[in-house]
Order: sequence, then C-alpha cells, then structure tokens
Amino acid sequence: MKERIISGNRRALARAITLVESVRDDHQQQAQALLSDLLPETGKSVRIGISGTPGVGKSTFIEAFGKFLTAQGHKVAVLTIDPSSKRTGGSILGDKTRMEELSRDPNAFIRPSPSGGSLGGVARRTREVMLLCEAAGYDVILIETVGVGQSETTVADMVDIFMLLLAPAGGDELQGIKRGVMELADIIVINKADGDLIPVARRAASEYRGAVSLMRPKSKHWKPKVLMTSALEKAGIDTLWETIGEYREARSADEELTRQREEQAAAWMWAELGDTLMNRLKSHEQVSVALPRMEADVKAGLISPTAAAQQLLAIFLEK
Amino acid sequence: MKERIISGNRRALARAITLVESVRDDHQQQAQALLSDLLPETGKSVRIGISGTPGVGKSTFIEAFGKFLTAQGHKVAVLTIDPSSKRTGGSILGDKTRMEELSRDPNAFIRPSPSGGSLGGVARRTREVMLLCEAAGYDVILIETVGVGQSETTVADMVDIFMLLLAPAGGDELQGIKRGVMELADIIVINKADGDLIPVARRAASEYRGAVSLMRPKSKHWKPKVLMTSALEKAGIDTLWETIGEYREARSADEELTRQREEQAAAWMWAELGDTLMNRLKSHEQVSVALPRMEADVKAGLISPTAAAQQLLAIFLEK
Repeated sequence: MKERIISGNRRALARAITLVESVRDDHQQQAQALLSDLLPETGKSVRIGISGTPGVGKSTFIEAFGKFLTAQGHKVAVLTIDPSSKRTGGSILGDKTRMEELSRDPNAFIRPSPSGGSLGGVARRTREVMLLCEAAGYDVILIETVGVGQSETTVADMVDIFMLLLAPAGGDELQGIKRGVMELADIIVINKADGDLIPVARRAASEYRGAVSLMRPKSKHWKPKVLMTSALEKAGIDTLWETIGEYREARSADEELTRQREEQAAAWMWAELGDTLMNRLKSHEQVSVALPRMEADVKAGLISPTAAAQQLLAIFLEK
Repeated sequence: MKERIISGNRRALARAITLVESVRDDHQQQAQALLSDLLPETGKSVRIGISGTPGVGKSTFIEAFGKFLTAQGHKVAVLTIDPSSKRTGGSILGDKTRMEELSRDPNAFIRPSPSGGSLGGVARRTREVMLLCEAAGYDVILIETVGVGQSETTVADMVDIFMLLLAPAGGDELQGIKRGVMELADIIVINKADGDLIPVARRAASEYRGAVSLMRPKSKHWKPKVLMTSALEKAGIDTLWETIGEYREARSADEELTRQREEQAAAWMWAELGDTLMNRLKSHEQVSVALPRMEADVKAGLISPTAAAQQLLAIFLEK
C-alpha cells in the first residue's frame, strides 16, 4: 500500500484514509503502521488553513484558489474540519457539488470532514489524512474550517499559515468576528471584491488593516496582511499566492516555520496522550461501571468532585 | 477543625485554606478529608464572578459592593483567580491595600489567587477555597478574575452569575473586549458612571445593550442586562444587587441554576480526572525517563505523534 500511495494512486490514498478514519482497533493498528512507514515522505507541502463564516464565499474561493494552483502544476488537497458534520452520502455530494470544477481536477483531492466525534478526534484524523496526502505527493494542503467555536484554533495548530476570509463589509461587521480568530490570521482576505462591492471592500480592507495593526503579531518576522480577492472573477488570487510565498520566506528566518511545525507535532503528541488516556479511563471495565453513579453523586453534592476523581483514578490505576 | 470552621472561626478557615493550597501529599489528604466532611455545609451562597480589564476600577467596585453587602448583614468572601500571580508578602499586602476598608470588615474575607501552577490547578484550589468559605458561613462569594486568556471561562464555570465590568467608553473600545467574554456575561456593569463621565457611560450602556441584544442568550429565562454604577460614589450598587436577585429568581424556573451547578460539579470532576491522570503520567518513573527523547523524536519527525503517544501510554499502563 505504501508504494502505491507514494506513486500517487488515488484509490490507495482513499483506502488509507478509510483506515485512518475507522474506529476498529485492527484498522487503527494498520493505519498507525502505515503512517509510521510513510512518515519520511510527509511534511513537504505548504499547509494552509482557511476560515470564514458562512456567506463569505469560501467554497467559490477554494475552488478558484485550487484551480489556480493546479494550473501552476501543484497538486492540491482540500480537507475540512467540522466537528458538527455527520457525513452522509449527501454531504460528500455536497462537497463535490460546491467545488464542482475542482473535484473533477485530477490534481485535486477533496475530502470532507470526518464524521462525528469530539473536535480532538476529528482533528487527529484530519492531521493524519494531511500526512497521507503529503505522502501521496500533494504539495499544497488546504484545511478549511467552518468557523464554529474552537475549530479555528485547532486548524491554526496544524498549518503553516492561517487565512481568514471576510466579506466586504466594514464598521459594525467588525464586531461580528471573534477577536481571537482575527488574532490567529496571518493573512486576511476580503473576498467578493468585485462589481459594486469594490468600494466597500476597499473600505473594509483599510478598516481591517487598522484593526490588525493594533494587535501584537504572532511572529517576529511577519505582520498580518490584508488582501482583496474576487473568487468569482478570479482576481487577486495570484497576489495572494505571492504573499503566501513572501510569508514563507519571511518566516524561514530563525527557522520560525520549522520550529512552529516542531511545536505543533509535540502539542499533537500531548493532545493524543490526553485524549487516549481519558478514553482508556472511560472504557475501563470497573470504571465504566462506577462512573454513572459517581457522576450522579457529584451532581447531587454527596461527594466532592475531587474525591470522586480520586476514587475513579484508584480503580483505573489499580491493576 | 470542622466545627471551628462551621462556627466561623477565621483562623481555622485560614488554616484549612493553607491545607487546600499545599502541594504536600499528606496536606492534600487532610484537605480532601476535611472537604468531604464539610460538603453538606457548602453550596448555600450566591456565587458571583467578576471580570474586567485593568483600569475599570475593579478593586474600588468590589470594595463598594462588598461593603454594601456586609452592611445588609451578608458575609462576603472575595477570591481571586490569576494564574500569572506569584503570591508574595507584597501581593497579599497588595490585595489588602487595594480593598482597605473591606479587608478590615469582620464580615468580609479576602483571599488572593493561589500562587503559580496551571490555570487548572489554580481553579481547583479556588473552587475548594470557595467551598470552605461557604462552610464558614460566607453567603456571598465574589470570584474576581484579572481578565487574561482562559480565566474568564474558568470563573464562569464555577459561579452562578458572571458579571463583566466595563469602563464608560463606547465605539472603538467595543472591539477591545473579547467577544467570547461578552457572551459569558449575565450582567454587564458600566462602572465609573460619575461626574463628567455620566453621558459617556450612558452612551456606552446603550451601545452594549445593542451588542448584547444581538447575542444568543445562555439562558432561556434571562437576557443579559446592562447597568451603570459608580463605585466611587457608591451609586447603582443597590440596583445591581436587586438585579442579581431578579436573575436568581428568573433562573430558578426549570431549576436552571440548580442544573448549572450540577453540570459545573460534573465538569470539575472530569477536569480533575484529566489533570491528575496527566500529572501521574508525567511523574511516572519510566515515562519521565522516556519522555524527553520521545518528544525530541516527534519534533524531529522521526516518529509520529500518535505512535509516540501510544508507546508512552504502553509504558504508563504496563504495571
């Protein structure tokens, strides 16, 4: 399987992803063995996170951006993180429909969000799918998030560069975006800058430039930039790609980007440790028997949360 | 010790808090035994969270609010959550100085943030100190947070009502507050509404009312309210206390508040389980030997984060 993935066989890649996303123990073991084998082939892509609230034209943007990249000879994988998604036939179809051209492009690979589970679980599988895509030769990975709650932070923690897509609107709308998300952005893109909206987009861009200039930059070598694009008219995409190039060059100083990836990998290991430990605890036979009663007693104030935790831990670590 | 705490002996309370905050194993055991004993005496207070950025006059506000409450016959405990604080003689003195009158009030008890440690650790100790204060008869607990990062969420997760203190300023300043924090607030208080600032405070109040009306309320029975106070002139405090009463009454419908406390207790148990498990893992002898090497290999891309986590877990759960 390893060789076929590396040679770029799409069916082998799809099968590997199925393994990674499976909850069956034997599948997980195979998946982990495969990932270990493929590890030397990973890491050679530009990892780009894209966030934006519904209505900013994210799908059209990703389609235009993706087509631009494949036309330049890149291989592009589009992954989505949406912990709320219940993947069904319909939603896979949905992803293909909303990026119709790109989904037919032989140099593009579109994969919807793994279904269900906690954000931690969804994130882990997405990270692993990203590694598989890299091993399969995709050199630009776009990780899209739907912009609910914590998922932006999660995406920012697995990419090299985080882009925030905004609608051309200023003033009051500025309040609509969570400030924390603005602070994650390395590049802010005002999309839909076309036709009548061009003046509004310009005004918005200048407002966001003002807002961004007040924030402390994440990097010593990069100040967040605000750009305008029209996915509809395919305008501004080339400048955006150039800016991503400048970003990568700027942040190669002091090996900032390399260190960011190292820290991300370590954080991933810790998250994995935490999640797996808690899952083991919950599925431990005696613990899972004691848990419902214990939780009820805690809620009823019959036992303190700390004491309950200590008792459960004692059961778990006994043997 | 139990009886002396219940009878309201301040020295016994202080000694119990020292036990709770100690990192010594034997102290922790004594603390947990004591808390279990006292559990039936806890839960009878109004738990109020207060957040606000520096400069809004939080100390003056808490002093005025606290004095108002003790004058009405209440016993008030003021606790602080600040994970960045390194408690020293100076900072205790600091807390007493900044609330000079209240700290001399026999019906008030002021306790600065436990020193150092993770936010999780600081939060646990603060929760336990809150229970001790309740057992000692304090019927209003004010938990103040300094407004950095995650500490607001942490405080909101341990109180009945969360108040956000704001300076009288509108327009641009609206952007300065993290939207996530605004969304936590059950009551927004525009402080310093005195003298020349009254018109500004009025305008700010009306702007925040507009902002708040756009947010989805946390409760079915309560929409966040915006009030004005002047801690300096002790104005608006009575209305605030009345509003807190209305809040409690409104949220008694469907036993919302009771259920909130139940969920908070359960979440505390889970947080405790997670923290303690990870601490056990890190301090496990063979794990702590393997960890630095493993983390370095993960960063260097020699082993996948998941594989590393699995190996460390295998070591930890072996025996």
